[in-house]
Formats: sequence, structure tokens, C-alpha cells
Amino acid sequence: MNNTFTLMARTGRAFHLAQGAQLRITNIFGSQVVDTWAFRADDINEYMSMEHTRVHSTCPTPGKGTVFRSNMRRPLLKFTADSSPGVHDWFFAACDGARYEMLGFLGEHENCSDNLRRAMTKLGHPISHIPCPLNLFENAPLLKGDIGIYPPASRPGDFVELTAFVDLIVCLSACPQDMADTNGLDREPKNVQVSVVHY
Amino acid sequence: MNNTFTLMARTGRAFHLAQGAQLRITNIFGSQVVDTWAFRADDINEYMSMEHTRVHSTCPTPGKGTVFRSNMRRPLLKFTADSSPGVHDWFFAACDGARYEMLGFLGEHENCSDNLRRAMTKLGHPISHIPCPLNLFENAPLLKGDIGIYPPASRPGDFVELTAFVDLIVCLSACPQDMADTNGLDREPKNVQVSVVHY
Repeated sequence: MNNTFTLMARTGRAFHLAQGAQLRITNIFGSQVVDTWAFRADDINEYMSMEHTRVHSTCPTPGKGTVFRSNMRRPLLKFTADSSPGVHDWFFAACDGARYEMLGFLGEHENCSDNLRRAMTKLGHPISHIPCPLNLFENAPLLKGDIGIYPPASRPGDFVELTAFVDLIVCLSACPQDMADTNGLDREPKNVQVSVVHY
Repeated sequence: MNNTFTLMARTGRAFHLAQGAQLRITNIFGSQVVDTWAFRADDINEYMSMEHTRVHSTCPTPGKGTVFRSNMRRPLLKFTADSSPGVHDWFFAACDGARYEMLGFLGEHENCSDNLRRAMTKLGHPISHIPCPLNLFENAPLLKGDIGIYPPASRPGDFVELTAFVDLIVCLSACPQDMADTNGLDREPKNVQVSVVHY
């Protein structure tokens, strides 16, 4: 079985990812950051945790080979393929209303935290806190001692693949950041393509 | 008012820290890591968040001057003094039962996550998830591309001071890690001294 959909710019979507299934996220335009979360389908209180993953990682940044662990330290997802230059982030919180307010936005700005909340509620799983996301394609070179966030290093058509160790609910948010260079110098959030292959 | 107590090795304690109060944590023996959390006293769902703090930090690691922000991006604590060489961690999860099980421990090992849970429950505030802690004195040079955790760089008597922006509940755990070098090459968790000065 193969399901493909377009994740529209600025929006989020949550969906089931069965054990063994492979999730491919294609950065159609090359410049779009995708905030990524995962929860155990049988207990959403167990979620993919960047801080637990880092303790057991063999690499200081996320990349091909990384085993993403839960807050119970169990493997949930494996980073199985990456056609991009391999620049992703796992240090920074998802954007939220307060982030845009601090950047000077007046009113309600779309944001990844609300995208996650809404998408999980839609599946019948309201959540009480926002775990630190895996920020696919986000170019935040903190490890180089640089506190900035730059346009993605990825190119049009670059993709990553994540494979599920257990039955999961995954949520993706095409980051709506348009007040910083996170999603490219044109600051224009764009669509990405998502494919799920169940073997 | 000045309150001083000894935080016994391997244990945790939660306490109120009033707006403006200054918390001093003294590493009596120099080798003890202290996992640190903070929650708003009027709403413990708002907690000190390392991933939100990093987004707004002017420095890639925590140190004197860092403003620790909440999951609502509001300032909760400021790192106001540090007599140590300034090596602290904010990337790694607190230890928990699963961590010691993975290291080969049979049975129930004291751990910082349970210390936090118990201390908060004792104050009447059971918590539903464990935020990533500020790991004071933890020597994990991830920024140098090194995934190891080494003995603290601090010396006997070194202290740090944190000052509260708002009324808080702070929890400290003298990390019980004795199966890795986190708390020194002797792998022997030790007491630390805690002082709170209310002006």
C-alpha cells in the first residue's frame, strides 16, 4: 500500500504509521522546514523525545542512522534515508503564537504548535504538552556555536525517510515561519509531499 | 531571609522560590551534577523549557546571563552568577529507571526523574511529564561534536546562582548516576548545598 498526499504550506497533519512502514517527506521546493512529532499509537503519553534520543545517539545531530527514542527510551522511528545535505535540527522548540508576537506580529499567526494540537485533537488525541520536535531541514548550526537559524541547505526534490519501529501516530507541520529565514530567503512557506509505504 | 539546606546525594527536593529570590547551589565536592527544573507557582503547566530557552538565547550553552524561558516563552529564571568554569548541559534528558536498566542495573535505581515526580507530588503538584532539565555542572561537550558525558569541570566549593523572575516552584535533584562518570571518576554521588536568599 502506498499513500501520498501534499502537506499544504503552513498546515499540519497527523496520521497513523504502522510498524515497519516507511515515511518519505519530500521537500518539493527545497526550502521548507517540517516539524515532526511521533507518539505511540497505543499510548500517546509515550512520545518521540529529542532529549532522550540525544543521550543514546552516536551522532550530535540528527541524520541517517539516528534511532529516535521515546521518553521511555524505546526506539520509535529510524532515520533510514536522506538525499539532502543532512542539515536538520533537534534543539529548538516549535514555533507558537508567542514566537510571532515576540517577532512583532499583531494578531493570530499560524504556528507549528497549534498545528500539532489541532491535528492530534482531530484524531481524538488531545495533547497536554508540546514535545520538542524533530525539525527536518531546519538549518540551525548551534553545534558550530552559532545561535542563528538560516535557510535550509536542502535542494528542490530532496527527501528524507523515517521507518517506524512500532505503530505510531506521526504529526507533520509545514512550518508557517514567514518572519525569519527559516523557510528560505523569500520567507514564503511552501508545500511538501508526504508518502507512506506500508510493506 | 536566608534558608540553607543540604541536598543529600541521590535525592531531590522541590520548594518555593519567590519572585526576586536568589538560589545558590554549591557543589561542595565539585563533582556533583544537579538536575534543575522550575514551574510557575501559579500554574505548574508552565515550566522552564530548554528548547524554548535555546531559541532566544544569545549563547549556545547555558551560562551566566542566560534567561531561562518557559514553554510560553516567558522568563522564569536568570543565571546570575557562576564561580565554576561554566560547563553545564541543557541537551540531555534526566536519568530514569530505563537509563539504569540499559546500563545493566538490575532492580530499582534511584533516578532524577523519580526524584522530580516524588518531590512535586509531595508539594501537591503531581506532574504528567518530565521536562528536559537544566543539568548544572554536567560536562557533556555535545557542542564540540562529542557525544560523551565526562566528570564535571567544577571544583569543590564552586557555586551557581539563579534568580527568579516570578514566583516559582523549583526542583533540584542531586543526580544518583553511579554507573558512568557523570558525577566524577569515583562514580560516587555526593551532597550539595542549597541556599535561598529572599531580599
